[in-house]
Amino acid sequence: MSLSIYEASVPVFIRGMRNLQAILAKAEAHAGDRGDPPSVLIEARLAPDMLPFNQQVQRVSDTAKGAAARLAGQEVPSFPDTETTFPELQERLTRTIAYLESVPADQIEAGENRPIVLRPRGGELRFDGKTYLLSFALPNFFFHVTTAYAILREQGVPVGKMDYLGGF
Amino acid sequence: MSLSIYEASVPVFIRGMRNLQAILAKAEAHAGDRGDPPSVLIEARLAPDMLPFNQQVQRVSDTAKGAAARLAGQEVPSFPDTETTFPELQERLTRTIAYLESVPADQIEAGENRPIVLRPRGGELRFDGKTYLLSFALPNFFFHVTTAYAILREQGVPVGKMDYLGGF
Repeated sequence: MSLSIYEASVPVFIRGMRNLQAILAKAEAHAGDRGDPPSVLIEARLAPDMLPFNQQVQRVSDTAKGAAARLAGQEVPSFPDTETTFPELQERLTRTIAYLESVPADQIEAGENRPIVLRPRGGELRFDGKTYLLSFALPNFFFHVTTAYAILREQGVPVGKMDYLGGF
Repeated sequence: MSLSIYEASVPVFIRGMRNLQAILAKAEAHAGDRGDPPSVLIEARLAPDMLPFNQQVQRVSDTAKGAAARLAGQEVPSFPDTETTFPELQERLTRTIAYLESVPADQIEAGENRPIVLRPRGGELRFDGKTYLLSFALPNFFFHVTTAYAILREQGVPVGKMDYLGGF
């Protein structure tokens, strides 16, 4: 039995980003209740050489739009990494979801064997579309969603696993 | 174009667990170099009400074996949660990988529309196999792998994103 490559990519990314948007809303409310400036959470990180919260959310966006674009054979849309507030991060995710919704499913379905080349930090990684999605894009996407969540948990924001998984 | 439900489950879980085994090896070596008892890392957690490192690894195992078993229509094998050392956690992952390798691919392929019922903390969640895999099992699996990694990073263990993603 089969999944389509579209089913295993775009709706999974959109679901993860909507769940993250609900988590962001709780974090912003919590910062307000606590009287902290929102920048405390926005700039929080788990280790000195790990990305802070806002950049984790930016990487969630990049992983999702990069995967959809590459699988569809489109140029990856470039969003400047300027977000430093909760409303701006919400807007980044909303724009990313809108982009994903704009990519034609049939272009993604045609991406299973599309050659995909990534150049992380000077290296070069070559994949077919299927391997790229399952070995790189999905693990990387959930890495950044989970790390964003973990930063908030470590900072005492009252969110839980079901916020991450979302409703069923 | 299509993926099989097997391709999107068992090899993805095995890859994630092998990457986690390499991370565990680096963490154990780091603890030795630093002269800390390994229990410092094994018991570390990101927040007082989050699971410690060893239990994150146990949940990685549970998510993977639970997904493979449920998709295949088998009873989920029960592994006692007794691991308190790095070698024991390695063995837990090795046993989990061996179980996943033992599940016939064709039984998993037949799982796309299999009704799956989970009962987390007294609730009840009902899925078909495909929705269970994409909306619950994969996000949950990467949640626990990433949180285990994040605990080690927060504790100063020298691992990086490519350890999490693995080689290509």
